[in-house]
Amino acid sequence: MTELRLDATIRNWVIVAPERAKRPDEFRRQHQRAEPNETCPFCAGREAETPPELFRLDDDGGGWRLRVVINKFAALSAAGSRDQIGNGLGFTSMPGVGSHEVVIESPRHDWDLATAHEHEVRDVLAAYRLRHRALRDSGTAAVIIFRNHGAGGGTSLPHPHSQIVATPVVPLLVRHRFDVAMQHYDDTGHCLYVELLHQELADGRRIVAQNAGFVAFQPFAAASPFETWIMPRTHRASYGDATDDELARLAPLLRDVLAGLRRLLDDPDYNYVIHSAPPGDEARPYFLWHLQIVPRLTTPAGFELGSGISVNPSSPEMTAASLREAITREEFV
Amino acid sequence: MTELRLDATIRNWVIVAPERAKRPDEFRRQHQRAEPNETCPFCAGREAETPPELFRLDDDGGGWRLRVVINKFAALSAAGSRDQIGNGLGFTSMPGVGSHEVVIESPRHDWDLATAHEHEVRDVLAAYRLRHRALRDSGTAAVIIFRNHGAGGGTSLPHPHSQIVATPVVPLLVRHRFDVAMQHYDDTGHCLYVELLHQELADGRRIVAQNAGFVAFQPFAAASPFETWIMPRTHRASYGDATDDELARLAPLLRDVLAGLRRLLDDPDYNYVIHSAPPGDEARPYFLWHLQIVPRLTTPAGFELGSGISVNPSSPEMTAASLREAITREEFV
Repeated sequence: MTELRLDATIRNWVIVAPERAKRPDEFRRQHQRAEPNETCPFCAGREAETPPELFRLDDDGGGWRLRVVINKFAALSAAGSRDQIGNGLGFTSMPGVGSHEVVIESPRHDWDLATAHEHEVRDVLAAYRLRHRALRDSGTAAVIIFRNHGAGGGTSLPHPHSQIVATPVVPLLVRHRFDVAMQHYDDTGHCLYVELLHQELADGRRIVAQNAGFVAFQPFAAASPFETWIMPRTHRASYGDATDDELARLAPLLRDVLAGLRRLLDDPDYNYVIHSAPPGDEARPYFLWHLQIVPRLTTPAGFELGSGISVNPSSPEMTAASLREAITREEFV
Repeated sequence: MTELRLDATIRNWVIVAPERAKRPDEFRRQHQRAEPNETCPFCAGREAETPPELFRLDDDGGGWRLRVVINKFAALSAAGSRDQIGNGLGFTSMPGVGSHEVVIESPRHDWDLATAHEHEVRDVLAAYRLRHRALRDSGTAAVIIFRNHGAGGGTSLPHPHSQIVATPVVPLLVRHRFDVAMQHYDDTGHCLYVELLHQELADGRRIVAQNAGFVAFQPFAAASPFETWIMPRTHRASYGDATDDELARLAPLLRDVLAGLRRLLDDPDYNYVIHSAPPGDEARPYFLWHLQIVPRLTTPAGFELGSGISVNPSSPEMTAASLREAITREEFV
C-alpha cells in the first residue's frame, strides 16, 4: 500500500509509492552529456562573446577562475518601474523588470562541481553570496539562485554554470513557503525549519551526510527520488547572510552529496535551488535558508499538473541509506 | 524585452519571453512513439491481464470499445479511514486511501484521440463523467481526470488511455485555485472564469477554436508554448454535471484542437487535465470546470523549482494564431 506524506514546509501532500520502484540504482536514466564545444562562449579565451561581466575571480596566471556575466538570453532584464499594467481583470502585466545572471564556475568546459576541489566550490558559493547581497540591496523582491545540470535538467549549455534571477515580484511559491513558516512561528514561537531539522536528526534514517555546519537529508515527504536538502545548523533567514566559515563548511558537504549522486546514479541530470527569505525579511526568526537538490529521475505528468501532488516511486528512507553509503565510499577512495 | 503576465486564476506570474523563441513549428521536439506491443495488456484479447473492470462499453460484434479498469500500479488504492497519523510536526502521514483508474479508450493500440471519430471521443468523455460521478459520491475529496500522451508526457504504456485519481485530501493546488475563484466572487459577485472567458472572446487574439458549447483558447498568461484551455459556455462547477449535449459539443472541439497540435507540432507529447470544483462544491456559482492541455515542449528547470514562475519562450498570441490556422486547415482536408 502507498502512503501520503505531508510536506510541512508547504502544507502539501506527496504520494510515496515505493512498490512501483526498483532498487535505488535502477533510477539511473539515460542522459546526454555534450562533448567539449569548439565554440562554447563560456570557455577561457572567448570572454568577448559573453555580455558584460559583473564579477571575476582571477587566477594566479593572469587568467580567471570564475566569472559572473549577464545572461545573453535574459528572462528578466529591464530597469525601471514595477508598475503593473491592468487591461482588465485577466490581462495584468508588467515589463520584464529584474535581472538574470550567469555564474561561469570554471574556465574549463569539463569541470564538474561534484568532483571539484573544495576551494573551487567555495568560490562558487561566495560568488552566489556576493551577487545575492548586491541584488537584494538593489530593491528586488526575490533572488533565486539555481543550478541546472544536464539536458534533462533544462540546461542548453553544458559548460558548468549556475544562474541567479532577481524578480520584481515575490513569486507565489516563495510567498507561500514563507507564510507557512510565519504561521508556524506565530502559533508556536519556534522556527519550523529548525524543528524539522532536529526531528530529522533525531530520527536519523534520512540523514545523508553532515558536518559541524550543515546537515544533508532527504525529507520525510520527498517529492521525487533522491531529493536532498542541505540545511545550516546556524539560524539565518537569508543566504546572503551566511558567513565565510559557513560557506567553508557547506562547500565540502555539497560537493560530497553531488559526488555521491554522481557515483550512485551515473552523473544524473539535476537542479538545485537555494531558498531564502525575500529581501527585507533577513532578520525574521522563522525562516531558515536551505539548498534543495532535485535529481531529474522521474517525469511529472497529468496528475501532478492537475493536483500539484507528486508521486515519489521510492522510499526516502531507502534512497537516503544508499546515498549515504555512496558518499562514505567516495570519501575513502 | 520580456514581459511578466499574471495568471488571475492562481494569482501567479509567468514570464513571457518570446525573443528566445523560434517560429511556432520550431517547438517540435524529438519524441519516441512505441511500436505496437505484442504483449500490451490494454489490447483486445488480453482483458485477463488487467485488474478488475469497473465499466465497459460493448461494440456490436461481441467485443468492447472502451474499458475502465483499476490501475495495476495504483498510486492510491486503500479503503478505510482518512485519519492522519502524526508522529511529530514534520512526520504527518496517512495510508494511500483513494483510487486510481485507467480508461482504456480503444481496443486498438494505434488509435489516437486526435484522429478519432467524434462518437469515440464522446464515449471517452462520457466514461470520465460516469466515473467522476461515482467517485465523488463515494466521499472522496478530489477527482483528478487526466491524460498523458507520449513518453515525454510521462506515460509508460503507449496504448491510448486516460487516468482518474480520487484523493482523500484536497490537494493544495486545487484548494488554491478554488479559493482564488471564491475570493473573486466574494469581492465582485461574478464568476472569475466566466469573466476571463468573456475577456478572451472580446480580445480574440488567443482564441483557437469554438462552437456553440465551448471555447478553446490559449490563456493570456500561458505558462508554456501552446498551452490551451477549453471552457464551457454553460456555467457548471463540476465536470460530473456536464450534460450529454455538452459532451457532444466538447468532443469535436477537443478532437480538433488535438488534431491541430498533432499536425503543427508533429504529434507532440502532452498532458491534459480537467479542473473541477471539489466534490460537495458542485453548486458553487464561482467555479467553472475546464480542460487544460499542456504540450511538453520545454523543460522546467531550477528557476521554476525555486520560484514556481514559468518562463514561456513563446507569445500566446502567436502560437494561438498558428494553432488556429492548423485547425482550420485540418477541417478542410
